[in-house]
Amino acid sequence: MTTISIIGGSGYGGGELLRLLLAHPHVEVKQVTSRSRMSEYAYQTHPNLRKRTQLKFSDPAALEPVDILFLAQPHGQAQHHIDEYAKLAPKIIDLAADFRLRDAEMYEKWYGEKHAAPEWLSKFVYGLPELHRAEIAAANYVSGVGCNATASNLALLPLVKADLIDLSAPVIIEIKVGSSEGGAEGNSGSLHAERANVIRTFSAFGHRHTAEVIQEMGVKDISLTMTAVDLVRGVLATAHAKVKQGVVIKDLWKAYRAAANENPFVRVVKEQRGIYRVPEPKILAGSNYADLGFELDESSGHIVSMCAIDNLMKGASGSAVQCMNLMMGWEETVGLEFAGLHPI
Amino acid sequence: MTTISIIGGSGYGGGELLRLLLAHPHVEVKQVTSRSRMSEYAYQTHPNLRKRTQLKFSDPAALEPVDILFLAQPHGQAQHHIDEYAKLAPKIIDLAADFRLRDAEMYEKWYGEKHAAPEWLSKFVYGLPELHRAEIAAANYVSGVGCNATASNLALLPLVKADLIDLSAPVIIEIKVGSSEGGAEGNSGSLHAERANVIRTFSAFGHRHTAEVIQEMGVKDISLTMTAVDLVRGVLATAHAKVKQGVVIKDLWKAYRAAANENPFVRVVKEQRGIYRVPEPKILAGSNYADLGFELDESSGHIVSMCAIDNLMKGASGSAVQCMNLMMGWEETVGLEFAGLHPI
Amino acid sequence: MTTISIIGGSGYGGGELLRLLLAHPHVEVKQVTSRSRMSEYAYQTHPNLRKRTQLKFSDPAALEPVDILFLAQPHGQAQHHIDEYAKLAPKIIDLAADFRLRDAEMYEKWYGEKHAAPEWLSKFVYGLPELHRAEIAAANYVSGVGCNATASNLALLPLVKADLIDLSAPVIIEIKVGSSEGGAEGNSGSLHAERANVIRTFSAFGHRHTAEVIQEMGVKDISLTMTAVDLVRGVLATAHAKVKQGVVIKDLWKAYRAAANENPFVRVVKEQRGIYRVPEPKILAGSNYADLGFELDESSGHIVSMCAIDNLMKGASGSAVQCMNLMMGWEETVGLEFAGLHPI
Amino acid sequence: MTTISIIGGSGYGGGELLRLLLAHPHVEVKQVTSRSRMSEYAYQTHPNLRKRTQLKFSDPAALEPVDILFLAQPHGQAQHHIDEYAKLAPKIIDLAADFRLRDAEMYEKWYGEKHAAPEWLSKFVYGLPELHRAEIAAANYVSGVGCNATASNLALLPLVKADLIDLSAPVIIEIKVGSSEGGAEGNSGSLHAERANVIRTFSAFGHRHTAEVIQEMGVKDISLTMTAVDLVRGVLATAHAKVKQGVVIKDLWKAYRAAANENPFVRVVKEQRGIYRVPEPKILAGSNYADLGFELDESSGHIVSMCAIDNLMKGASGSAVQCMNLMMGWEETVGLEFAGLHPI
Repeated sequence: MTTISIIGGSGYGGGELLRLLLAHPHVEVKQVTSRSRMSEYAYQTHPNLRKRTQLKFSDPAALEPVDILFLAQPHGQAQHHIDEYAKLAPKIIDLAADFRLRDAEMYEKWYGEKHAAPEWLSKFVYGLPELHRAEIAAANYVSGVGCNATASNLALLPLVKADLIDLSAPVIIEIKVGSSEGGAEGNSGSLHAERANVIRTFSAFGHRHTAEVIQEMGVKDISLTMTAVDLVRGVLATAHAKVKQGVVIKDLWKAYRAAANENPFVRVVKEQRGIYRVPEPKILAGSNYADLGFELDESSGHIVSMCAIDNLMKGASGSAVQCMNLMMGWEETVGLEFAGLHPI
Repeated sequence: MTTISIIGGSGYGGGELLRLLLAHPHVEVKQVTSRSRMSEYAYQTHPNLRKRTQLKFSDPAALEPVDILFLAQPHGQAQHHIDEYAKLAPKIIDLAADFRLRDAEMYEKWYGEKHAAPEWLSKFVYGLPELHRAEIAAANYVSGVGCNATASNLALLPLVKADLIDLSAPVIIEIKVGSSEGGAEGNSGSLHAERANVIRTFSAFGHRHTAEVIQEMGVKDISLTMTAVDLVRGVLATAHAKVKQGVVIKDLWKAYRAAANENPFVRVVKEQRGIYRVPEPKILAGSNYADLGFELDESSGHIVSMCAIDNLMKGASGSAVQCMNLMMGWEETVGLEFAGLHPI
Repeated sequence: MTTISIIGGSGYGGGELLRLLLAHPHVEVKQVTSRSRMSEYAYQTHPNLRKRTQLKFSDPAALEPVDILFLAQPHGQAQHHIDEYAKLAPKIIDLAADFRLRDAEMYEKWYGEKHAAPEWLSKFVYGLPELHRAEIAAANYVSGVGCNATASNLALLPLVKADLIDLSAPVIIEIKVGSSEGGAEGNSGSLHAERANVIRTFSAFGHRHTAEVIQEMGVKDISLTMTAVDLVRGVLATAHAKVKQGVVIKDLWKAYRAAANENPFVRVVKEQRGIYRVPEPKILAGSNYADLGFELDESSGHIVSMCAIDNLMKGASGSAVQCMNLMMGWEETVGLEFAGLHPI
Repeated sequence: MTTISIIGGSGYGGGELLRLLLAHPHVEVKQVTSRSRMSEYAYQTHPNLRKRTQLKFSDPAALEPVDILFLAQPHGQAQHHIDEYAKLAPKIIDLAADFRLRDAEMYEKWYGEKHAAPEWLSKFVYGLPELHRAEIAAANYVSGVGCNATASNLALLPLVKADLIDLSAPVIIEIKVGSSEGGAEGNSGSLHAERANVIRTFSAFGHRHTAEVIQEMGVKDISLTMTAVDLVRGVLATAHAKVKQGVVIKDLWKAYRAAANENPFVRVVKEQRGIYRVPEPKILAGSNYADLGFELDESSGHIVSMCAIDNLMKGASGSAVQCMNLMMGWEETVGLEFAGLHPI
C-alpha cells in the first residue's frame, strides 16, 4: 500500500480528501494533522466518517515520512514550510493556492505579497488533469486548483483548445457559488440567518482565482464576477465570450464532445427536453464530474459556455486525488467513482 | 408623540423592534443603543431600514429620559441595571428573559444562577397579551416572552382555558425552529454550510422556555423538545396531550374559535383542502399572527395542537409592541398590520 | 373610497395585489375573480389573507363597473378582452405582458404571434414610475412590467440617464431569480425536490423581457441570461457594460445618487463594511424598493451595475399599486410602506 | 454476473436503485422499465447517471427472465402482477408497500382496500436486515420498507430488543421529512414556492407506515406525526416513550452500542461537543447508515430516541440492495460503501 498523510485535515477540503483517501483501494492514510483539534477523532469534525476511521488528528510537528504528502492548509502556509515537507515525502500534492502560479510577479500582483519560496514555483505542475495530464503523470509536485478557476477553465477549455473564440475580446465569467467555498471558519456573513436565501455579489472584479484562468487559458481581458447563492456545495461558471467569425453550432458540438471523450470526468449536458437540460451543480455533490454546456447566439457570435462542478471535489480534493492517480500510474478514476445523487 | 428608546439595538430582536417602532404612528424613536456598533448607522446592521432612518447607534451610558424604554439586550443584563433604567422611563418593556418568571426559586432552577433583582419579579407582568391583556393594560413593567414558550403557551391556551385536557398527564411539545432563534452572534453550528439542510434536535429536555409554560399554563409534567430546521424565521410547536374523557371535536372547535374571537392576532387554520390546511410559520414572516390548529384521535383521546408564529414577531418584538399598545390605551393592533407574504 | 376589482386573483401576482389593495387606505376591493376557484375564499389560496378578508373569488363574467380595474391574468388573455374591460372601468392597470411593448412588430418578434389588439398598444403607458412618472400620472391605461425587465432597466437607468455608458457596445445582463417567477402553476422542474439547491441557467438568450429593456433603454446589443437559484422571492440583475471614455467612479456615484433622490423606492447600496454591502433581494421580500449598486474596473471601463428587487413587488404588483397612486394623484408611496425584514 | 431488472425505474426509488446496481460489482442490470418514458435514456430522467449507462427505459411488457427482479412501482401495482413477476425471476425484492404487512386484515385497515393477493403475504419477509437478517438471507421474496417506518423501527429497536421500554404506554413518534418522500410526481403543495421554507404537519395521525411499526415492534399505542421540512433527502424520527422502572442511562448505552455492533449500518451519535452531537439526516444523503441517539430524563423516565436516515437509501433502495446482498450470500455492505458528505 502507498502511504499518505494529510497536513491540515480539519477544513472542508481536508475532510473531503480524507473521505476519498480512506475509501481509496491503493493507499493507506497514516496521519492527518490539525493543530486546533489535536487528539480529537477525525469523525468528530467530519461526522460522515464515523465508523469509517478511528484516526485522530495529530500534531503537524510529529509527521512521519510517507510516500505522498497532501497539503490542505489555508492559503499561505505551505510556501513557508515546503522545504521541510519535501523531506517527508517524495511526492507532494498541495490543495492551497501557494504553488498554482508559475510566475512570482503574477503571484505578487494577485496575492498582494511576495512569494516566500519563488524557487519552488517552477517545480510544481498546475493540478488540473484536463489541462496537464501528461505533465502531472511525470511530476513529483502538483499544485491545487482554485474551485472558481476550475469551473472557468473547463468552461473555456473546449473553446480555447479548438481555437473557436477571440481571446482578445473581453471574456466575462459570472460565477455562482455555494457556502462551502467560504470554508469551515466562515465570517459574520456566513451565519445561516444572513447567508440563507442570498443572491450576494460579493466580488465584482479582482477575485484571486482570475490569475489561474489568465495563466492557463491565455486570456488577457477577463473578469470573474462572484455571486453567493443558497447552496452548500457547488459552483456554476457562466462564461460569456465571442466566437470567431464563421463559427457555428456544429463546431461547438465537436469541440465539447472532444473534451468529453478525452476526459473521463467531463460530460456535455445539452438536452432539448426533461428537467436537466443544462449543467447544474445540484446533482454533482460528491462527484468528480465537470458538466459542460453551451448556447450560441449565431447572429451576434455571443457564446455562453457553462461549467458546473462540486467545488470540494473537481474544484479541490477530487482533482487532487485524480492527480495522485496519474502520478502513481493508477487508473485515473479510481476512488472517484461516486455518481452523485438525484434528487438532492 | 410618545418618546421611546431601545437599549440593545444590534441584535435580531432589537432590529425588529426598531423596524416596528419607526413605522408606528404614535411613537418617536429617540435613541437606540449598541455598545459594539456605536456611531454606526442602524441601517448598516439592519439593511431593511436603509432610507427609513438616519439614526445611529448611541452609547447606552448616554441615554436620555423617555416615555417608554424597551430593553432588547442579551439575557442576564437587564436585571443588573433595572434600577437605573427605571429612572429613565415610567414604563419599561423587556424582551429578554430577566423578568419573565414570577418566582425567584424557579428562576434559579431553570437559569442556574440566583436572580440579581428578585424584588423586581413581582412588579413585572408576563408580556403575552393573549394571557394577560387586562394586567398588561394596567402595568408599568412588562416582561418579554420566550418565542418557544409563546408557541407552546398558545398551542395549549384553548385547551387549558376551556379545561379540555388532563394536565396531570404528560404533555410533550415538539418545537421546530428557524435559525434566527440563535441570534445575530451565532456559534460554530450556525455557519450556513453546517446549519443548512439540518434536522437537528439540539435539546431533548430542559430548554429554559419550559419554565414559562409551567408558570403560565399550570402544567406539571411537560417537556419541550427542540429541533432546528432549515428556515430563518419561524417556530412551530406541536403539542401532544390527552383530552379529558368525553371531549369530542366539537368541543375543540368551540375552544379554538373562542381563542380566535377573543384575540385579534390568533387564527384557526384547519382546512380540508388546498395547500395551507395547517398552521405554518412559512407565511407568518413579519406578521404578528399566531396560527392554531389541532387534530384529535377520538379513539385514544390523543390531541395534537399546533401553533405557528414568527419568533421575532409574536415570539418577541411583535408581542412587545402589542403590549405597548395596551399599556398606552391604543388600538391593540396598531403598527402590527402587516399580513405576511405568500408565497415566500 | 375608490372602487377596484382584480381579474385573475389566484396567481402569485394577483394575490400580492390583493394583499396590497386590502391594506390600502384609499381603495375598496369589490371583486376578485378566479375561474378555477370560483366561490372559494381568497384566503384559502392566499393563506396570509386569513382574517383579513372574507372575499370569495367571483366569476369573471359577473364583473361590475368600478373605478379601477386591475388585470392579473396569465399573459395573452387581456388583449382579447380589452374592449370589454374598458367598458367596466375608466382606468385599467394590466400586470401581464399584453400591453408592454409599443410596437406591434416588436411584439410579434418576441412573442411569436400577432398581437390581438394592436390599436391598444399606443394607449398604454409602460408602468414603471421610475421611467414614466409624469405620463403615468396622466394615463388611463398602464401596462405591467416584466420583473426581469424591471431589474435590468433599473440597473441601467442611472447609467443611461446620465449618458455614462456606450450603448453601441454589448450589454450582458446576468439575472438570478427565485421560484415564484415560475408562477403558481409551475412545471415538472418546479417540484421542490428538483428545484431546491439549483443553479440552473434555464435561458441563455431570448428571454421575452429583453424586449422591454430594448424598448425602454434604447440599447441595441443586449442579452439577458436567466439563472434560477434557491430562493422563492427575488431577482438580482447584474449588468455588465462599458462606460464611456473618461468616466470615473465619482460620475457613477453622482448618477446613482440622483436616481435614489428622484425616486422614493430606489436606494443605493455600496458599503465598505458590514454584511450587506451590495444590493440583495433577500431583504426585499414584501418591500417595493429597488436596491442599486455598482463596481467599476477603471482600467478597462467595465462596469458591473446591480439591481435587486422583489419580483412580486417592484417587479409586478408593487409597481402596479405605485402606478395607481400616481394615476389617482395620491402620495406615490401610500400602501407600499413595508420596509422588508431582516433577517429572513 | 447475477442478472437483475427493475420494474418502475423513473421514480426516485427506482432511480436510486439503478444508481446502486450499476455500481454494484456482482450484478448486471439487464432492463429497467418505465411506461411513460419508454425508449428514453435513463440518464435523461436521472441526470447523475449520464456517462454511467446507456440503458434506455424499456416496456414492462417486454421483460426477460433474470436472476433477481426489483419492483419499484407506485404502491398497489405489484400485488396485481406478482404471479407473472414470479415467473420471470426466482428472487423478487419489492420496494412498494404491497407485501410489507403479514396480515390481510391489517392491510385492509390501513390501506382502505382488500389486498389483491393475500396468499402472497406470508411468502414475503419484511425487508429490514436489522430486524430480519437471517430470514432475509433464506428468503426468495423480500418486501420493501416504509422510510418513516424504518426510521421509527430503528429508533425503537435497541429499546425493544433490550426490553427497556413499557410498550403498553403510549409511544409518540414525531417524524420530520424532506421533499423527496413526496415522489417524482408531487402535487400542488410540492411546488418549490409552496414547499420551500415549510414546517408543515401534513399528517398528525394515521400515516400508513404506522402499521409497519405496530407489526415489527409489537407496540399497541403508537402514533406517527409527520412534518415536512425544507430538505430534499432525509428523515428524522424522534420517538417519545417511557422506560421501564429502574432503567438508567448505562442500560441505554449498552442497548444502543449493541445495535451498532450487530449492524454494519447502524451508528450511535451522542457527543458532548462539536457541531454534530446528535443523529442528523443532513450528512446521510447517499449513505446507507441509520444514525441513532437518545436522551433520557431520569426523573420522569421519558426517553427521546432518535433515528436519522436517508429516506431513499436506508429507507428504500439502500435497504433493498442490502437485502439482495444477504439473499445472495454476498458481503452485506457491498455496493453500499459511500460514506456520505460533509458539509452538504
